[in-house]
Amino acid sequence: MTEAPRDPFGWLDEAADRRRDAGLVRTLRPRDAVSPLLDLAGNDYLGLSRHPEVTAAAAAAAHRWGAGATGSRLVTGSTALHAELEAELARFCGVESALVLSSGYAANLAAVTALTGDGSLVVSDAANHASLIDGCRLSRARTAVVPHADPDAVRQALAGHAGRAMAVTDSVFSVDGDAAPLSGLSAACRAHGAALLIDDAHGFGVLGEGGRGAPYAAGLAGAADTVVTVTLSKSLGSQGGAVLGPARVIEHLVNTARTFIFDTGLAPAATAAALAALRLLRREPDRARRVRTVAAGLYAGLTDAGLDAARPDAAVVSVRAPSASAAVRWAADCRAEGILTGCFRPPSVPDGVSRLRLTARADLTDADVTHTLKAITRTAPGARTQQR
Amino acid sequence: MTEAPRDPFGWLDEAADRRRDAGLVRTLRPRDAVSPLLDLAGNDYLGLSRHPEVTAAAAAAAHRWGAGATGSRLVTGSTALHAELEAELARFCGVESALVLSSGYAANLAAVTALTGDGSLVVSDAANHASLIDGCRLSRARTAVVPHADPDAVRQALAGHAGRAMAVTDSVFSVDGDAAPLSGLSAACRAHGAALLIDDAHGFGVLGEGGRGAPYAAGLAGAADTVVTVTLSKSLGSQGGAVLGPARVIEHLVNTARTFIFDTGLAPAATAAALAALRLLRREPDRARRVRTVAAGLYAGLTDAGLDAARPDAAVVSVRAPSASAAVRWAADCRAEGILTGCFRPPSVPDGVSRLRLTARADLTDADVTHTLKAITRTAPGARTQQR
Ligand SMILES: Cc1ncc(COP(=O)(O)O)c(C=O)c1O
Ligand SMILES: Cc1ncc(COP(=O)(O)O)c(C=O)c1O
Repeated sequence: MTEAPRDPFGWLDEAADRRRDAGLVRTLRPRDAVSPLLDLAGNDYLGLSRHPEVTAAAAAAAHRWGAGATGSRLVTGSTALHAELEAELARFCGVESALVLSSGYAANLAAVTALTGDGSLVVSDAANHASLIDGCRLSRARTAVVPHADPDAVRQALAGHAGRAMAVTDSVFSVDGDAAPLSGLSAACRAHGAALLIDDAHGFGVLGEGGRGAPYAAGLAGAADTVVTVTLSKSLGSQGGAVLGPARVIEHLVNTARTFIFDTGLAPAATAAALAALRLLRREPDRARRVRTVAAGLYAGLTDAGLDAARPDAAVVSVRAPSASAAVRWAADCRAEGILTGCFRPPSVPDGVSRLRLTARADLTDADVTHTLKAITRTAPGARTQQR
Repeated sequence: MTEAPRDPFGWLDEAADRRRDAGLVRTLRPRDAVSPLLDLAGNDYLGLSRHPEVTAAAAAAAHRWGAGATGSRLVTGSTALHAELEAELARFCGVESALVLSSGYAANLAAVTALTGDGSLVVSDAANHASLIDGCRLSRARTAVVPHADPDAVRQALAGHAGRAMAVTDSVFSVDGDAAPLSGLSAACRAHGAALLIDDAHGFGVLGEGGRGAPYAAGLAGAADTVVTVTLSKSLGSQGGAVLGPARVIEHLVNTARTFIFDTGLAPAATAAALAALRLLRREPDRARRVRTVAAGLYAGLTDAGLDAARPDAAVVSVRAPSASAAVRWAADCRAEGILTGCFRPPSVPDGVSRLRLTARADLTDADVTHTLKAITRTAPGARTQQR
């Protein structure tokens, strides 16, 4: 018999050594409530997370409803707030029905697993978010991973399959900020009678009329064969996620989606905050336009400076770095200049290329953009090399 | 070529019909902030969800920190509140380190997937919670499902395996409220050099000295080979989850767990509420004892009345019903008498037996218990039959 390992977690030390050698150690850096840094790393695209109406709604809900939902949505965890948010999300996005879950991650797991199953096929974009990928892994369906943003590849993957099928895509990809070809994808699905699931985490609040999202912009809102997931944690500045779609899809999720049924309902404060943010967005639709303008300004400035930025289709602007360690240094140098950026390294990047990731916010001023561009170009790896 | 289906969601109608025929349709019933019903369905075991200190902490955090964490924990989503909660949870439970995630579900997915992998074995109790099961499904490990609460079965499953292994169990099972034989399970794991992962969702706050949880009560707190998950949504009355264990385990999760890395951080309000609840529990440790006393009182009363109740090892008391429809009717009759109960039917019950599920709360009075027992016994399926 082989000798069993005595230290069941000894292998973790080897994994830690490998991370250290590769320069890929991640460390938590808790932040303070007030920071001198200009935040271009968070996903609070519309600047609503700290809007007084939004925080007041969160606070009032905590007082009125309690700090937690106290149970799963099917037992004690559905409050009138949840129902209101679901009704308003559905109306805003032009769909029949909506279902709120405790996170965007949970919403994606719910939608992928409940809408597929034994014998069905899921066609998944190679650059999809981890939560969609995990949904595919959890599903009993066969998954075909297709090249990024390629409707023809989706068409081909579907062509070989006779039973139920669904294509799955981010609307805006979280690393490079590029948009999926939704019309082409929808046409490919329709030619085959397949469903289309769109994760609009980064499109909702930013794209489409007044921020109604990428599926709305593509004319897919309310389509009988299309399901959309959104997160309440980015444009709405709160926490939670939702699935939007035909009423029968939502009813099916209520009855079968494990991350809905076996999970405590979203906290009242988060629910109320998302609702307040949604109402603000409806009242101030220009926030959606502003975030796109800021993103375009960042991209233009970076490109003018000769940096390798990806053209943003929404709020995310990504700039390539020559290596993971260069990206880390670049982000640290930006931080020293007062700018907080995201630094994406393997395994968080699909292609192994490390990047700085900037997120536009509707509440950034033109002066903020100028200041940001100066800091980023001044500290860029190439710039530094040239100077020395 | 086979004709592709034109309506990609047509199959949902058939699934809905089958649910209706089986009497297993689930419907959301949003509740109001104030209810005339006595709640024996929620998981707010210590009655802290609406405690003024807890709700005030949530409200203050929303004002001070904003409604959302604005990003994943590794980007902008770690606040000083998260760090404080992690430090205090670890100290309270007697472990080296803790990591807060957006839900207990996410914590279980993180712990199971990050601590297993190709070539490893997971031994999973047949009655484990859906989130642990989904963790096993997501993991690349081989899963052996073993009979409920059976250390010998775990021993046998481990015996045949040479590589890395981990056993996974709820500490208190959510349907029947029975406790896992943690000492026996730990001994079985240690004999083999395997790790033990304990989901203490229903033990934390209820069992062990001052509510330190089932692993603490079993002498496993701080053990180098044991990892514990808790939820912040039950005894702490908030939302979120945490993984507790050796520092190297937590560091590994920070670096590799997908539901940690690719998920927005827990909202500040929920984080602060959990922290306030934890401090309250430390100050008022008798809450943990009280909830066990209430549960014991409910069990005694139900058993005295001849009902088929399961002996509670923590706060959950479950009573069997003759059928799913009888359970639904029973719960409705209780509701008419002012008592809100949980009604668990397939597929939420592992053995197909429907149940009423009552949850004890530390803030229930003896009069509440008496009133509850009267309502439940008066409306019991057998009682009604006998009366007619
Ligand atoms: C594309 C995408 N989908 C889903 C999610 C998950 O949403 P949440 O953080 O609300 O769980 C994220 C980010 O967190 C994302 O970027
Ligand atoms: C045993 C068990 N584990 C995990 C969870 C998930 O925790 P949460 O609801 O916080 O996601 C639950 C209940 O919801 C549970 O009962």
